[in-house]
Amino acid sequence: MNILVLNCGSSSLKYQLISMENEKVLAKGLCERIGIDGSRIKHTKIGEDTVIINGDMPSHKDAVQYVIDALISKDHGVIKSMDEINAVGHRIVHGGEEFASSTVLTKEVIEAVEKCSDLAPLHNPANLIGIDACKHIMPNVPMVGVFDTAFHQTMPAKTYLYALPYEYYRKYKLRRYGFHGTSHKYVSNRTAEFLGRDIKDMKIVVCHLGNGASVCAVDGGKSVDTSMGLTPLEGLVMGTRSGDMDPAIVQFLADKEGLSIDEINTILNKKSGVLGISEISSDFRDLENAIEEGNERARLTMDVFSYRVAKYIGAYAAAMNGIDAIAFTAGLGENNAEVREEICAYLTFLGVEVDKEANKCRGVEKDISTKDAKVKTVVIPTDEEMTIARETARLI
Amino acid sequence: MNILVLNCGSSSLKYQLISMENEKVLAKGLCERIGIDGSRIKHTKIGEDTVIINGDMPSHKDAVQYVIDALISKDHGVIKSMDEINAVGHRIVHGGEEFASSTVLTKEVIEAVEKCSDLAPLHNPANLIGIDACKHIMPNVPMVGVFDTAFHQTMPAKTYLYALPYEYYRKYKLRRYGFHGTSHKYVSNRTAEFLGRDIKDMKIVVCHLGNGASVCAVDGGKSVDTSMGLTPLEGLVMGTRSGDMDPAIVQFLADKEGLSIDEINTILNKKSGVLGISEISSDFRDLENAIEEGNERARLTMDVFSYRVAKYIGAYAAAMNGIDAIAFTAGLGENNAEVREEICAYLTFLGVEVDKEANKCRGVEKDISTKDAKVKTVVIPTDEEMTIARETARLI
Repeated sequence: MNILVLNCGSSSLKYQLISMENEKVLAKGLCERIGIDGSRIKHTKIGEDTVIINGDMPSHKDAVQYVIDALISKDHGVIKSMDEINAVGHRIVHGGEEFASSTVLTKEVIEAVEKCSDLAPLHNPANLIGIDACKHIMPNVPMVGVFDTAFHQTMPAKTYLYALPYEYYRKYKLRRYGFHGTSHKYVSNRTAEFLGRDIKDMKIVVCHLGNGASVCAVDGGKSVDTSMGLTPLEGLVMGTRSGDMDPAIVQFLADKEGLSIDEINTILNKKSGVLGISEISSDFRDLENAIEEGNERARLTMDVFSYRVAKYIGAYAAAMNGIDAIAFTAGLGENNAEVREEICAYLTFLGVEVDKEANKCRGVEKDISTKDAKVKTVVIPTDEEMTIARETARLI
Repeated sequence: MNILVLNCGSSSLKYQLISMENEKVLAKGLCERIGIDGSRIKHTKIGEDTVIINGDMPSHKDAVQYVIDALISKDHGVIKSMDEINAVGHRIVHGGEEFASSTVLTKEVIEAVEKCSDLAPLHNPANLIGIDACKHIMPNVPMVGVFDTAFHQTMPAKTYLYALPYEYYRKYKLRRYGFHGTSHKYVSNRTAEFLGRDIKDMKIVVCHLGNGASVCAVDGGKSVDTSMGLTPLEGLVMGTRSGDMDPAIVQFLADKEGLSIDEINTILNKKSGVLGISEISSDFRDLENAIEEGNERARLTMDVFSYRVAKYIGAYAAAMNGIDAIAFTAGLGENNAEVREEICAYLTFLGVEVDKEANKCRGVEKDISTKDAKVKTVVIPTDEEMTIARETARLI
């Protein structure tokens, strides 16, 4: 069985074709600049070089057609015809309170996803365009929606309610949702498997540290708290997002800078975070280079980042009354040994102890704790596409 | 030596006259509705009943005159003439980055306080009016300013910087300041004294839980982190303040409810918090009654409140890599045994253990931990007025 995994943005489309028999990725790629001049597709048949195909993609429908053409092409294709795509798994950002798990995309479900667009106006509409495109081009292929928010629907009310007038929750479902759920679920489960333990008996904190970043408290396999909120702006310091701050700062900036709420929201999402503090880059690799060159602001930026991750881990230890394991994942979490070491240095009071030698690793599953550490610290590369493919295969 | 301690709001003035020889409060009171019809003063000579004196107070100058008249009155006065007031200690909300400690209020200092009004437009102007009133009525009496923010000026940059464009810090000193500093300083020092230990060797988390509420991490006697931020809106759930939330909620509410930034800020400050969630009251005593009557929303409100305090304690354990003591203070912290118990129940992983019998106390200094608890939990009633008086006496 082959599953096509799609992740649609407003002008982009990421895809992977996965063979489920051996859980192998056959091909993957990215359509860029959909609806914009200069659209193209970067396509990789696994084991071969990436090819770039320029093509006219005024809409996502065209992009999906290009993807299928690439997958069945004689030169760099991996299947003979569209019939060898048995199902499509769509990443959907916001499932609201409707979706606590992945779901086959029936007409009714798609309508319910549309209703959630209110909560994620930047993301859900793009996801829906991708679903619509597939419906036209592959009308007989079943589709499954896998929601970024679903894993966090187990959070209790004391976690998800903001201290706002309750009518906003009643009227708009304004609450904490959390994101990166597919990753947090996968990594927490792999952590338990990797340590040879039953996840039902474990308290795990997953640190998904990439350009977007979030922390999740997983108690007995269930998300009980997470740092992103109504939107992905809340929580940790991210590449360009502020994360937590005094909400009164919005008014302060409006007064001082004469900015509108929308302009401020754009600054908080696109010009803040690591980029904002450092005034260097949103990319942690640039920051590391600057630190090596003795740039003090870059050093301070990393300190702020690590400190805030450590505080969340401490907070989630309180949320679960202790922790058994900390898992690092995503770009920074998988590859940056210094950041992992800096974060863990705050946490020896919990029984966290990192083995410096073991920690010298990148992008592999590894226990990086000392032998006697009371709390296990592990690196677990995330695999959101594989999780989406598995969910899709399970449901069709 | 007698010190008059003043806390001026925009239409109110709280006062205490304290004899420093024996640190005894001689008289205290409150002027209400200054500049509004029906202004009056509630005055208490310690040991006697409170008297209410109606009087015309179009300005704070008039209010200060009424206070002095009450203090020297034959019927309920405590001194013979104004000459027996040796100094005035003013509570000042915001000292910005200028003031890391209390200061004699010279002309230059008052100008610097005026500059900080930008950062606390609701509070500093009222404090300044009180200072100005005293200057006119008691021109020869020295005055000292004691700042709510001063104690937190020891926070390192990794704590006080928001992940915003750095230019806002450069231009406006936009950063975390923290408040309740006078209380956090007093309570952390008393905690060490009470436990018979040197504060230099202690890691203490102070939970100032009143209608306004904040948590402070005190490492070796210095504030290293606190939950309030640029303004007192950030942090814990409070009586009517939201505390922490996704900053994107401001835009969400503007879109949905058609509200301006100022209107939203008012909702976040005045209609949120405990009042917002419970839809019952901002007063925790009303909430407790509702809980006893089986009101589920009241129960949930307390759960949200306690959970968020516990998470801050966990976060500050990470900030200091462990804690030695937790101190509860202010209205709720001193008087509500249930809340203390609920918060501490999250923290047994740290070695916090509350003795249920010992915890049955209100408003007294008490060690409420079990004999073997690794982390000591104490109740320490705060005394901001006495701290202001001591600071004033020390400086004149």
